Amino acid sequence: MNLNPAHTNIFEETTDHYPKPSIQSMLIGRPLATADAPHQTIGKLVGLAVFSSDAMSSVAYGPQELMFILAAAGVGALRLAFPLVVGIVILLGILIFSYEQTIHAYPNGGGAYIVARDNLGILPAQVAGAALLTDYILTVAVSISSGVAQITSAFPGLYPYRVEMAIAMIAFIMLINLRGVKESGITFAIPTYFFLVMIFGMTAVGLARYLSGTLGTVINPPEMEIAITQPLTLFLILRAFANGTSSVTGVEAISNGITAFREPRARNAGATLLIMAAILGTLLLGITFLSLQVGALPAEGETVISQLVRTVYDGRGLLYLLTISSTTIILVMAANTAFADFPRLGALVAGDGFLPRQLTFRGSRLVYSRGIIALAAIASLLVIAFQASVTNLIPLYAIGVFLSFTLSQTGMARRWWKSGHLSADEEVVEPGSVLTHDPGWKLKMLINGLGAVCTAVVMIVFTVTKFNDGAWIVVLLTPALVAMFVAIRHHYKNLASQLSLEQHNNLADIHRNRVIIPISSVHRGTLAAMRFAASLSPDITAVHVSIDPQETLKTEEKWNKWGGDHRLVVLHSPYRLFLEPLLEYIDKITAVMAPNEIITIVVPQFVPRHWWANFLHARTAETLRKALLHRKNIVITEVPYQVE
Amino acid sequence: MNLNPAHTNIFEETTDHYPKPSIQSMLIGRPLATADAPHQTIGKLVGLAVFSSDAMSSVAYGPQELMFILAAAGVGALRLAFPLVVGIVILLGILIFSYEQTIHAYPNGGGAYIVARDNLGILPAQVAGAALLTDYILTVAVSISSGVAQITSAFPGLYPYRVEMAIAMIAFIMLINLRGVKESGITFAIPTYFFLVMIFGMTAVGLARYLSGTLGTVINPPEMEIAITQPLTLFLILRAFANGTSSVTGVEAISNGITAFREPRARNAGATLLIMAAILGTLLLGITFLSLQVGALPAEGETVISQLVRTVYDGRGLLYLLTISSTTIILVMAANTAFADFPRLGALVAGDGFLPRQLTFRGSRLVYSRGIIALAAIASLLVIAFQASVTNLIPLYAIGVFLSFTLSQTGMARRWWKSGHLSADEEVVEPGSVLTHDPGWKLKMLINGLGAVCTAVVMIVFTVTKFNDGAWIVVLLTPALVAMFVAIRHHYKNLASQLSLEQHNNLADIHRNRVIIPISSVHRGTLAAMRFAASLSPDITAVHVSIDPQETLKTEEKWNKWGGDHRLVVLHSPYRLFLEPLLEYIDKITAVMAPNEIITIVVPQFVPRHWWANFLHARTAETLRKALLHRKNIVITEVPYQVE
Repeated sequence: MNLNPAHTNIFEETTDHYPKPSIQSMLIGRPLATADAPHQTIGKLVGLAVFSSDAMSSVAYGPQELMFILAAAGVGALRLAFPLVVGIVILLGILIFSYEQTIHAYPNGGGAYIVARDNLGILPAQVAGAALLTDYILTVAVSISSGVAQITSAFPGLYPYRVEMAIAMIAFIMLINLRGVKESGITFAIPTYFFLVMIFGMTAVGLARYLSGTLGTVINPPEMEIAITQPLTLFLILRAFANGTSSVTGVEAISNGITAFREPRARNAGATLLIMAAILGTLLLGITFLSLQVGALPAEGETVISQLVRTVYDGRGLLYLLTISSTTIILVMAANTAFADFPRLGALVAGDGFLPRQLTFRGSRLVYSRGIIALAAIASLLVIAFQASVTNLIPLYAIGVFLSFTLSQTGMARRWWKSGHLSADEEVVEPGSVLTHDPGWKLKMLINGLGAVCTAVVMIVFTVTKFNDGAWIVVLLTPALVAMFVAIRHHYKNLASQLSLEQHNNLADIHRNRVIIPISSVHRGTLAAMRFAASLSPDITAVHVSIDPQETLKTEEKWNKWGGDHRLVVLHSPYRLFLEPLLEYIDKITAVMAPNEIITIVVPQFVPRHWWANFLHARTAETLRKALLHRKNIVITEVPYQVE
Repeated sequence: MNLNPAHTNIFEETTDHYPKPSIQSMLIGRPLATADAPHQTIGKLVGLAVFSSDAMSSVAYGPQELMFILAAAGVGALRLAFPLVVGIVILLGILIFSYEQTIHAYPNGGGAYIVARDNLGILPAQVAGAALLTDYILTVAVSISSGVAQITSAFPGLYPYRVEMAIAMIAFIMLINLRGVKESGITFAIPTYFFLVMIFGMTAVGLARYLSGTLGTVINPPEMEIAITQPLTLFLILRAFANGTSSVTGVEAISNGITAFREPRARNAGATLLIMAAILGTLLLGITFLSLQVGALPAEGETVISQLVRTVYDGRGLLYLLTISSTTIILVMAANTAFADFPRLGALVAGDGFLPRQLTFRGSRLVYSRGIIALAAIASLLVIAFQASVTNLIPLYAIGVFLSFTLSQTGMARRWWKSGHLSADEEVVEPGSVLTHDPGWKLKMLINGLGAVCTAVVMIVFTVTKFNDGAWIVVLLTPALVAMFVAIRHHYKNLASQLSLEQHNNLADIHRNRVIIPISSVHRGTLAAMRFAASLSPDITAVHVSIDPQETLKTEEKWNKWGGDHRLVVLHSPYRLFLEPLLEYIDKITAVMAPNEIITIVVPQFVPRHWWANFLHARTAETLRKALLHRKNIVITEVPYQVE
């Protein structure tokens, strides 16, 4: 029965509800409407700042951690550092070639997750997803820890406060990211270019002084913590190389974030990738070469960069402070890369149903707020657990990156193979890309195949040589995460099938609604509930669980006066239990109920004005809701009675 | 309209619902029915054990803390300890006379709270209540800390674990008390009498050796922490006396707990009080005398009792260990006194509406479980904060006791004055006592008046001399607690008047019920909610807040197929807010509603099988409930849809 047959159409209303100013909007800016979204894109110059800081900043710790391992075999072993860095730069080159192909094949964003999903299948994609999410968290922890290490190199008195400083920095980046990507770009472009000027300037001055023979050596080098105990074995050299590969983490950032670029996306993103690689390679070689020349030593007390800069500039003067500041800032911004990518990947995985759906909701500033907050929280915990030490964090880092590199390149190689076996007029449409026959598929497959093999080898070397140092944590965590993803997906699929309307037949109308009102006494709140109940059904029973006989007597008297014609059932509870007798009574009724009958529990609930007053009442409604939510054919209705 | 006019009577049912065995019943025993309550009373012998351990055990720290202050003026000043203890015993005598009168005037329990309430008024009663509750907590903290100090005196290696040991002991006593008072009595009678035998035995042996001239002095006394810096001023002597008065705390326990005694209650309780006082006085004098003779020194490392006992028994042999064990046990049981009284007083104050009503509910074992648990929790926090040091805790202790002594005796004095001014046939009936003319009222008033003056003087001395040591905490806390009590009372009174049915007229029946169903999409859960809504009212509107236009399109299509004749309103939300547009829509409707109209929000809610799955869903129902509970004429109904 519908009194308003005219109202069966669908009405649409736009609410102009503009959220009120709040502390939130003070911190992260005014809310953005959904329609504002497409304008939030960036060009090459800003894109380099947003997506390349991770890769470029790794010059601050990559060479240092490589030297750290070699130093275990004596200062003389450090001479191997330069050839190892050359190897790392070659690896970088291979990766860049591979990723250029990915960017052009996936103009809508070709992170490892998407490439693996399209070309290798669901499970490899989840492995890539788990690996990348883990590594974004570690990017934040490592970059921030290294940034703090730069500060404590310049001001050793701050060393005891390194964990607190790191946490404060993470919170700061979180706020900037909650504001949204475009503003991040502008905020971050100036310091990125400041870093590039300072670090290239320092490298140029250093090389000039080297060539003119005026470059000295480090005065008062820090004391190394490690004893010279180990022979220079191949295993040690591979361990050093593994540590150094942390310098190439971050090159995938651009391919994940193509959609943030201005059109033509693929070309802009590809160009940015090449510029970034050139800068990174030059810096790695230059800084490692100079560090070895000045005799810098890897140690917790002072970073290698700090030793190099103060030797080039003859002490801790203004240029030293500017260069170290710019390094600190680029490291803080590297963490920002992860803050741009982690929530985006989280939303992607969640959209596929492998993570909680809430990660796909965008906040008031159009960013995936929940992912940003989650990243900040987990990275902060890591920083606390590892006491903001880069050396302690490094063994957990980079496995995930190289695992995702391998999956991504394998996927691309597979894609070229498929492309080669399509006829010229066939095409395969995938979400975000279209696969057609490519005449150059053999060379492209070779390039991505080489990338896959190289990164797989590095990953295995890393896992084996760093296993005891902490890599085992990641080896255990990654499958655990994948298992969690699969469990979540299973839950959503199962839920969807149970809620599906396919093969659903409308149930018969409810023909009897039994209303039960649990009451502890009779007062205005009870009567308000009664009044409401009377509008639902004529079949009303008030139920009183009797714990105190005097209270019960009073309730019965009041009921006779105020209860109208309705029935009151008193349940005596000799053990002073409240819930159990009531549930037993409900069970008795449900046992005799027909399928199209229903029980409505109407709970009178007074709502106090002050939240603390809730502690002064037994929250019966809360308790009942929790107990009854799981029973079939029972509806719980709360009739609030507001107390002034 | 009532279909079953025959059902207007009141039905009563007794549920034989006997709770299932659980971890809880394993720890605290099988549930007791309410009808079991009256049998849970105790005689003199058990009563002495249950209620006197607080008073008697204070011989373990009272004299020691008195000596601790004197020692600041040099070891020579310790000679003043004995005369000060004689003064304390005289104070004890005055208190006992006063309390004998209270017990006989209040056979149903005459704690300071009740006496103050009956004779001085509501506010003084609340002051007494706050003071006593605070002191019960401190009784637990001090007694347990002293008990642990006895153990670490015997086994100095355990000193670093004193806080953990104290917490474990508090947890143990909590469990015993959750079992109920009778079993506590039996459990505790044996150790109490064990203590009395051991401590009187030790005192007798000590005196015999003193008289025969074979009592030596302490070998290797512990090092005192305090430097001898202060002159022996009157202020110092008063401070020492104040510390010593901690020995008379606990004498009020019996008058609070009269109802726990077997009939004739007053006579049994009064006799028990006299026995307790005689034992306490004898022990205080004997132990102080002997401690000074053997040259025991107050120190954190070893208790004075331990030094005395090992001197009397020539070392740490079996008799030493038995005596120290019995002292530890009596101290642990002293905490038990507080566990018997705190929840009882809490229930009393709560019954008057000054504390949360939940404190008046008795648990499965007929004890006030919530009060017991609260006491254990707060005392544990104190032990942690003060690192289980008796010397640190003492300045907080005893102010509350003496404040309540003063209020109680003043109340009694006032009562005798009133009694003297009644004519012979008049009587004043109060809850728990009847006041009639008493011919001996003048003497009785004099005794209680003397008690009031003495205790008031002690309280002032204590507050002034210990203010800087920590007494200020209690001076601030007591009025804060009283203010809290008054605020709680105000809340309950206000609530009661608002819920009162006096001058209440039944409201007109509801003549229109507008049902609103917020939906995010159309699925089986939605349809179940719709089916229920259709049984309530013909006036149904589904409301969809549109954040994603594609989702909205799908929802509209499904609605056309499954939504029957009902109206769907789509609210566009450009800022991706969910709650605000919905509330705005509801506001628009309420603005045009007549007084006898109502809105029912029917929320479809799926209930996942596993609790963790709740994290995978935006809990809309929860959010809506919190936002709508405070609005008038809105009822919230959840239609659960269980997912297998």
